[in-house]
Amino acid sequence: MRFVLVVGNTETAAIDGLSGAGASPSLRRHTPAADAEILTYGQPVFTPVTPVSPTGCPTPAVVTRAVREQLGFPVLPVGAGLAARTGAPTLTVGDTPGAEIRADVAVPDAAGLRARGRELGGALPDERLLLAESIPGGTTTAMGVFRALGEPYAVSSSLPENPLARKREVVTAGLAASGLELGATAGAPTQALTMMGDPVLAVLAGLVEGATASGGTVILAGGTQMLAVAALVRHSGVTAPMSLVTTCFLLDDDSADIREAAAEFDVSVRLAGERIAEQTGPPFDRFRAGEAKEGVGMGGALAMARQADVSTATLRTAIERCYDRVVTSDGS
Amino acid sequence: MRFVLVVGNTETAAIDGLSGAGASPSLRRHTPAADAEILTYGQPVFTPVTPVSPTGCPTPAVVTRAVREQLGFPVLPVGAGLAARTGAPTLTVGDTPGAEIRADVAVPDAAGLRARGRELGGALPDERLLLAESIPGGTTTAMGVFRALGEPYAVSSSLPENPLARKREVVTAGLAASGLELGATAGAPTQALTMMGDPVLAVLAGLVEGATASGGTVILAGGTQMLAVAALVRHSGVTAPMSLVTTCFLLDDDSADIREAAAEFDVSVRLAGERIAEQTGPPFDRFRAGEAKEGVGMGGALAMARQADVSTATLRTAIERCYDRVVTSDGS
Repeated sequence: MRFVLVVGNTETAAIDGLSGAGASPSLRRHTPAADAEILTYGQPVFTPVTPVSPTGCPTPAVVTRAVREQLGFPVLPVGAGLAARTGAPTLTVGDTPGAEIRADVAVPDAAGLRARGRELGGALPDERLLLAESIPGGTTTAMGVFRALGEPYAVSSSLPENPLARKREVVTAGLAASGLELGATAGAPTQALTMMGDPVLAVLAGLVEGATASGGTVILAGGTQMLAVAALVRHSGVTAPMSLVTTCFLLDDDSADIREAAAEFDVSVRLAGERIAEQTGPPFDRFRAGEAKEGVGMGGALAMARQADVSTATLRTAIERCYDRVVTSDGS
Repeated sequence: MRFVLVVGNTETAAIDGLSGAGASPSLRRHTPAADAEILTYGQPVFTPVTPVSPTGCPTPAVVTRAVREQLGFPVLPVGAGLAARTGAPTLTVGDTPGAEIRADVAVPDAAGLRARGRELGGALPDERLLLAESIPGGTTTAMGVFRALGEPYAVSSSLPENPLARKREVVTAGLAASGLELGATAGAPTQALTMMGDPVLAVLAGLVEGATASGGTVILAGGTQMLAVAALVRHSGVTAPMSLVTTCFLLDDDSADIREAAAEFDVSVRLAGERIAEQTGPPFDRFRAGEAKEGVGMGGALAMARQADVSTATLRTAIERCYDRVVTSDGS
């Protein structure tokens, strides 16, 4: 098994009120770069800011990293249009962040990103890939892709109150700017990505296609963004089995109809994180309050911890230690 | 501890008769990229060729990777002027391969590479760094740096018969092309690197400076190239303790006076690999014949295996398995 974290940026995250993946739009640009560093080193290295939400909720990378410190699984950070420098070793498949989806074209090189993702997915020697993402604004681009494909599903949010109305407004404006009707790109995933997606979705879709075509198994570790990946590959005719692992925090969010979408795309769903939901203390209280519900493969990592019989006490301590390290590294 | 593998290329490797790190000059370009892949995945991924010497000796990366499969130590591949694409996640600090040392300038951005290496060495959270290299032609550039600094030491070779006369000829031509007398850059390591070095040496020198300045410990895992790094940082005034771990294959090579040079630069030396030297079979026979004596931190990895009490049988099986995987992956 290899944990593949695809990191990138989209200008869509700079639209006011959409994303909680970073304390402000300018700090948010650093979140994917910092998440890759935290997953690799357990703390930021070059990134000048601690990735927290506007209210101080830590990035879910602290949970994924804490599990990794217990299990030692191999990680592959893949760069798909990072806007900030990262100190994590990264396999770069794209250099350019995505444009705003309200521009006429959001991802000019979507075809190339998808093709390079496909090549990588087919070349990796691992039988199983656990695929995860970090891209602020990513639930809005996921909604954009759903609508372009003609899929009606809602998306989740890293904020406690999901700004769904705002996202719909942005997506509607994006479709209009691209000259697209709802469902205009059904069966044409590259066109959906080009007009309404982001570089991370393009690479993830390619990774799924490449890995499944060469007989590998993929597990989508995440929420509605990973379901948008499933939608994209189903619209390109991939029929291989897919499963999704996500946190219970995410499914508690009744604005996101994960199960219905998963059934539609023939994706089996597993939940993880029930033990974390019962803990109290700074990071856990934030997660339970509905912040940073998913991302950086948090649910997938927690499922691995459960499968490996990591005790609740060990998991709790590991998360707190990683949280402290990440929070206190700020400004050093 | 983190195992930092600095990979890059120099046009010096294309000079006839200098390097055994690859079957031919054009295939040799891929060796560092492939070594990073083998260390990361246990086999080449994107690299189209199996890195072997002209006579078929496998890259020492198979030994380092085999040890890693037993111990699971974290690796950081650092890109310092790779000439070929790698499928390994890499922290890129320089994009441009080094020129031939017979050109007037070998590494135009040596100052920048050294500075970025220094920044990275100071930023990594690990208390101990084990530093290794992969760059075909690297012993010739190491000799170039020694001479530019006024140091008289010989260098080793990845070939059974060290082409020392040819290296001296190239270095003499390089000094002349750069307008340098022997020792002209003593005390000026960046100038030595710019005129006679390679990008990997520049980054390694910076890494040592950055790590030791912030209180970290560095272990140089390699042969005469790593001693050239020690020479560079001693010439820049670094007085921190340094140690070198290298294979017994290397010290058997009487053309390289490792111990004398190490004493001069106040570097303690440890040997590793005695158990490997006693094994027979395809990879071991080649190593014992004096091919691929060091590189990719082979000696450092073998020392870790000994320290962790990995049995000889386990080590032997792991190396054979990795060797088979790397050799059979060719052309797939």
